[in-house]
Amino acid sequence: MKNETIKKGMITLSKKLFPICRSITGNGLRQTLNIIQEHIPIKIFEVPSGTKVFDWSIPREWNIHDAYIKDSKGKKIIDFKKSNLHVVGYSVPVKKKMPFNGLREHLHYIPEKPKWIPYITSYYKEEWGFCLSYEQYKKLKNGVYEVNIDSELKTGALSYGELFIPGKVKDEILLTTYVCHPSLANDNLSGALLLTFLAETITEASRKYSYRFLFVPETIGAIAWIAKNQEKLKNIKYGLVATCVGDRGSYTYKKTRAGDSYLDRVVMNVLKNSGEQHTIVDFFPAGSDERQFSSPGINLPMGSLMRTMYGKFPEYHTSADNLDFISPESLLGSYEHYRDIIYVLENDGYYLNLNPKCEPMLGNRGLYNVGKKPECSEEEEIALRWVLNFSDGRHSLLDISNKSGINFRIIKRVADRLIKSDLLKETLDFTKK
Amino acid sequence: MKNETIKKGMITLSKKLFPICRSITGNGLRQTLNIIQEHIPIKIFEVPSGTKVFDWSIPREWNIHDAYIKDSKGKKIIDFKKSNLHVVGYSVPVKKKMPFNGLREHLHYIPEKPKWIPYITSYYKEEWGFCLSYEQYKKLKNGVYEVNIDSELKTGALSYGELFIPGKVKDEILLTTYVCHPSLANDNLSGALLLTFLAETITEASRKYSYRFLFVPETIGAIAWIAKNQEKLKNIKYGLVATCVGDRGSYTYKKTRAGDSYLDRVVMNVLKNSGEQHTIVDFFPAGSDERQFSSPGINLPMGSLMRTMYGKFPEYHTSADNLDFISPESLLGSYEHYRDIIYVLENDGYYLNLNPKCEPMLGNRGLYNVGKKPECSEEEEIALRWVLNFSDGRHSLLDISNKSGINFRIIKRVADRLIKSDLLKETLDFTKK
Amino acid sequence: MKNETIKKGMITLSKKLFPICRSITGNGLRQTLNIIQEHIPIKIFEVPSGTKVFDWSIPREWNIHDAYIKDSKGKKIIDFKKSNLHVVGYSVPVKKKMPFNGLREHLHYIPEKPKWIPYITSYYKEEWGFCLSYEQYKKLKNGVYEVNIDSELKTGALSYGELFIPGKVKDEILLTTYVCHPSLANDNLSGALLLTFLAETITEASRKYSYRFLFVPETIGAIAWIAKNQEKLKNIKYGLVATCVGDRGSYTYKKTRAGDSYLDRVVMNVLKNSGEQHTIVDFFPAGSDERQFSSPGINLPMGSLMRTMYGKFPEYHTSADNLDFISPESLLGSYEHYRDIIYVLENDGYYLNLNPKCEPMLGNRGLYNVGKKPECSEEEEIALRWVLNFSDGRHSLLDISNKSGINFRIIKRVADRLIKSDLLKETLDFTKK
Repeated sequence: MKNETIKKGMITLSKKLFPICRSITGNGLRQTLNIIQEHIPIKIFEVPSGTKVFDWSIPREWNIHDAYIKDSKGKKIIDFKKSNLHVVGYSVPVKKKMPFNGLREHLHYIPEKPKWIPYITSYYKEEWGFCLSYEQYKKLKNGVYEVNIDSELKTGALSYGELFIPGKVKDEILLTTYVCHPSLANDNLSGALLLTFLAETITEASRKYSYRFLFVPETIGAIAWIAKNQEKLKNIKYGLVATCVGDRGSYTYKKTRAGDSYLDRVVMNVLKNSGEQHTIVDFFPAGSDERQFSSPGINLPMGSLMRTMYGKFPEYHTSADNLDFISPESLLGSYEHYRDIIYVLENDGYYLNLNPKCEPMLGNRGLYNVGKKPECSEEEEIALRWVLNFSDGRHSLLDISNKSGINFRIIKRVADRLIKSDLLKETLDFTKK
Repeated sequence: MKNETIKKGMITLSKKLFPICRSITGNGLRQTLNIIQEHIPIKIFEVPSGTKVFDWSIPREWNIHDAYIKDSKGKKIIDFKKSNLHVVGYSVPVKKKMPFNGLREHLHYIPEKPKWIPYITSYYKEEWGFCLSYEQYKKLKNGVYEVNIDSELKTGALSYGELFIPGKVKDEILLTTYVCHPSLANDNLSGALLLTFLAETITEASRKYSYRFLFVPETIGAIAWIAKNQEKLKNIKYGLVATCVGDRGSYTYKKTRAGDSYLDRVVMNVLKNSGEQHTIVDFFPAGSDERQFSSPGINLPMGSLMRTMYGKFPEYHTSADNLDFISPESLLGSYEHYRDIIYVLENDGYYLNLNPKCEPMLGNRGLYNVGKKPECSEEEEIALRWVLNFSDGRHSLLDISNKSGINFRIIKRVADRLIKSDLLKETLDFTKK
Repeated sequence: MKNETIKKGMITLSKKLFPICRSITGNGLRQTLNIIQEHIPIKIFEVPSGTKVFDWSIPREWNIHDAYIKDSKGKKIIDFKKSNLHVVGYSVPVKKKMPFNGLREHLHYIPEKPKWIPYITSYYKEEWGFCLSYEQYKKLKNGVYEVNIDSELKTGALSYGELFIPGKVKDEILLTTYVCHPSLANDNLSGALLLTFLAETITEASRKYSYRFLFVPETIGAIAWIAKNQEKLKNIKYGLVATCVGDRGSYTYKKTRAGDSYLDRVVMNVLKNSGEQHTIVDFFPAGSDERQFSSPGINLPMGSLMRTMYGKFPEYHTSADNLDFISPESLLGSYEHYRDIIYVLENDGYYLNLNPKCEPMLGNRGLYNVGKKPECSEEEEIALRWVLNFSDGRHSLLDISNKSGINFRIIKRVADRLIKSDLLKETLDFTKK
C-alpha cells in the first residue's frame, strides 16, 4: 500500500470509529471490532461475564442508550447524544428528579480547563455520574433537575479482536492496542488506526516472523487474553503497545522492563536513524497493557512507541482529545516507524566475511567509489567496509548499524551486495539465536 | 530519643569534651572516654607502650601539665592554659631561656590566617614547639625568652573505647571515630558526639545486625585495634568512619575502596532521597582510619559520610575549628543521615510477588487510590506497583527504591502492606546472601 | 639521544626525503628506504609483481623520469620537475599533441583551493593525468597542447623495509608507517621521520618487549607483509600506525577495533598525563593500515596516534602539505608521546604490597613527607600510598596511575622505592598475562 492510501484510509476509518461509545465491554466495543474486521480478518472473541482471569473477574456487560440532565423547565442541559464523554463510564441506570445539592456530587468537571469535558469511568465500583465542562457547570443553579441514564449492566461478555499472521518461523511479534475508550482520538483511536493498517501491510509482505495483533479493552482485556492464552506466550519474542500515536508531538519510546532488550536496541536504532527528536523513558509499572505483559510472572520484552506519552498532553482524557488533535501526517509517521522497526526485526542477522584476512579488493567487483560514474556511492562504500570489518559472527547488522551510525536499510542493502559478490554469507538464522 | 533531646544532648556533651587536651595517648584521651562512658557502656582498653601492632609500635604515653613562653620581662605571652593548641602535640619537656633566634625555629603560625593558631603534632620524631597566631608572632622581638613545656613522655598505654551491641545475626556494622584531637570541634569532636548518640539510639531499638563502635586515636589506634582483633574482622560487613559531621556544609560521601559496594549504594540512596546537595568522592588512600580498614590485607568495605571533608574547609586544623564552627542542626542532620543508612541496612531484603501473573486487583484490597477518601495515597499506589513488578527475587527493596526514585521508607511501608494483603513474602534473609 | 639531537635529525632527514617521488612501487620508494637504512638497519624486501597476496596481486612497478605539458608555443606550463604531485600516480606513458578539449578530462584541480595542487593516483585502473592548481588551470586556453609522461609500468617488485629489534620476550610491539606518498610532509613523511628516530632510541635502550618496525606502501604493502608473515602475527601484542604526526594540531587517538584493549588504556593514560588537548575517536574501518591489521581474520589491537587526523586538515592530499606545514616541535612532541607509550608498555606490571595489613610506618623508612627537608616529596608520598593500597595483585601500575590521576612515571618511581624498602615485590611478569 502506498503511504497516501494509508493516510486516507486511516482518516476515513477514524471518522467511522470516533463517534462510537466504547467501554471495556458492550456493543460499542463490538461495533468497533466489526468495523476493523472490514479491513483485516480479526477473529472476535467473547469472554463471558464472571469468567475468572487470574486475580480478576470479567465484569458484567455495560450498554447505554441515552442519558441527559434536564433543568426544571424540562430543557436538556447535558445530553449524551452530543458527547458520549458526558456519562461516567459504567454508570448504573438512574432516572429521577433531584435538587442541585444532591446532583452536584455526581458531576465531574475541570476548573483549570473550563471548556473541556473530562473522561471518567467507574468499572468496579457501582456509581453513576455526569461529566461536563466547567463552563456548563458554572451555569447550573439551585433547583430541581431530572437525571436520566438509560444504561444496563447485565451478564454478557467482554469482546476482543485477534489476528494471527503466520510467518516462516513460529516466533511471534506481538502488537497490541486498546479499544475501550469512547470518543478520544489520540488515546486511543490512534493505536487502532495504526495497527489496522500495519496488519494489512504485513499480511501483504513476505515475512520471517509470525505476527499477532490484539485489539482489547485495556487492563482487563489484556489480562483476559493472557489468562486464556498462556501456552502462546512462549512464542512471543517481543511486543509493542501502540498508543497515543496520532498527536503532533515528537516520539517517546518506553523501554521494556529489562531496559536492555534486543527490542530496545532495535527501536532506538530506528528512532536515531529517523533523525527526528525523541525521548527514551525507562520502563515504569504504570501506563498501558505493557504493565500486564511485563508483570514478573509473564515478563515479556514489551515496549511502547508513542508520540506524546499518555498523561503528558493537557488534552489527555478530555473532550479536547478529538479528531482535530490528531493529524494524518502524525499517524502516517508513526505507522512508518512501526514498519521500520519490523523491517529491522525481519532483516537483522549475523553474517560472515568470506575474505576475512585484510580487505578484499573492492575495485575488481564494482564496489569501489571511484571515477566519474561510480558503481558504488561513497556512502555505500563506507557501509561496505563496516559490514566487511564487523561481520565476524559476533556483530549483527543491527550492531553494525549502531556502531557505524549508518541507517540499517543501507547496511542491509550493502550486505546483500556483498553476498552477491561472494564476500559475505549469513551465518545464523537470527530467530534461532 | 527525640531529635530535640539528641540535639541538646550533643551540645551539652560538646561543651564538656571540647576543652580537654587530647592526644594519641594520655590522660586527656582517657578522660574523654570516661565522659563518653557516662552515656554509653563502652569498654576502655589500654594497650601498653611498646606493644608491636603490625609494622608499628605503641609510642610512649604523653601527658602535659602546663606550658608557656615568657618574655624578658617575665610576662606570659603564650599560655597553654588559654589554648591547648599552643603546644605541638607530643612535645618533649623543655625549660630554658633562649634568644629569639633560637626560639623562632620552634614556632608555628600561618601568615595567610593571621588570627588562627595552627594544630601541629610530632608523634614519632622527638621535637618541641609552640603554635601561635601570626598576629602574636609578629609582636615578638629580639631578646631572651623563657620557654617551659611541663610535659612527660614515659611508658604507659594507648587507650581506646569499644562498644559491641549484639543483634539477631553475628554480621556486624562497624562505626568508628577518632578522639585524639585536642580542642578542634568539627575535626573531630563532632564524630564522637554523633556516634555516642547513635549508639544510644541503636541500643534502644530492635535490630537485625550487630553493631560495633570504636572511639580510637587516629591511625595508631585503628591499627592497634585491627592488630588485636583480627578474628573479629570476618563478621564486619560494612563500616563507616564518622568525621567532620558538624559544620554547616553539604554532605560528602567518600566511597569504599571497591567503589561499587552495597554500602555505597545504600549511602547514595539515602543522600539522594534526602534531597540535600551532596558530593560523592571516590576512595583515595589518604584521609582517616578508612585507610587502615581498606588496606589490601584488611579490605573491608569502609566508607565515610562527612559534611565538608577534612582539608577542604579553611578552619581545618586551626583554632577556628571551634564550637562556633559546628552547629546543633548540622550535627543532628548528620546523625539522621547515619540513622537512615542503618534503617536501609536493617530493612532491605528480597521479596516475591505472590500474584506474579498480571497485576492483582488492588481495588478489592484497599490498595487503590480512588474516590474522595482513598485508602491508599497516590504515592503509595505508585510505590505498590513498583514493589509488585520488581519483587521477582532479583531486585531488593533498595534496588526498587533506586529504580523508582521513591524513598526507601515508602517502599518498605508498602511492602509491609502487601505482605498483610498476602500479595508479597520475603524470600531471603538478606544477611545470608 | 637528546631531544635536540632528535629534532635536528628529523629536520635534516625530512629535507632529504621530501623531494623524492614515491609511489607504492618503484625507485622513489627504494631510495627512501635506502636513506632510512642510513639511520637504522632495516632490511629491504622486494615482492615481485604479480605475487598473489590474499585477494590482491602486487601490481607492476611504476617509474617516472619526466612529465610536462607544453602549450602551442612550446612553453612548459606544467612541469613534473617543479612538483611531483603534477602527475597522477601510476600514470601510463603518454606523448602526444591534443586539443584542450581532450586534455581537459585528464586534468585535476580544486576550485575551492585555487593555489594548491591536488594529490591523485590511479593504481589499479590504467589512466594518465596531470594535477595542477586551479589558478594554473584557469590560464589554459583553447589550442593544441603537447603532453608527455615519460613513465614505465613493467614487471618489477614492491619494496618495503622491516626492522626487528629483539627484546627479552618474544612478544612484539608493531610500529608501522607508510612511505608511498610523494612530496607530502604530514601525510606521511612525518610518520617515517618519527619511526626512524623511535627505532634508534629503542635500539639503544634496554627493553623487555621485541619491536618490529615496518616502512611499507599503504594498503598493498601492509597486505603483502601480512600475507607473507602470517606466522609472526601471533607474537604481536599491540600495534600503532604512525601517520600525520607533524602538523601543529592537537593529538587524535584512533582506538583499536575492540575499543577497550590494553593498548587503548595505555595511550589514553599517556595523553591524559601529558596535559595536552586531545581527541579520542573510535575505530572505523577506513583510514590507514590499521584497516588491514584490524580486518576480522587478522584482528590485532592496532591503534593510531596522530595529530590532526588524515582528511581533517584542509591541506590533506595537496601541495600545501609541505615542509612548512609540519614543525620540528610537533614532530618531537609526537615522538615523545610514542616514547611515553612504550615506557608504559615496558614498565607496567602487577605488584604485591608486602605489608598488606594496615599502612606500613613510612616515617621510619624515609618515605614520609615531613620536616623542612623531607626525604620524600608530598606528591611522592601520595603516590606511595596509592601504590601500597592497590598493589593487591589485581591492579597494575597503569591501573593505579589511572585511578589516582598520577603520572605513570611517578607511580613507577615510587614503586621502585618501595621495592628497595622491602615493602613491594613484582608478582607477575606482565607479558605472561
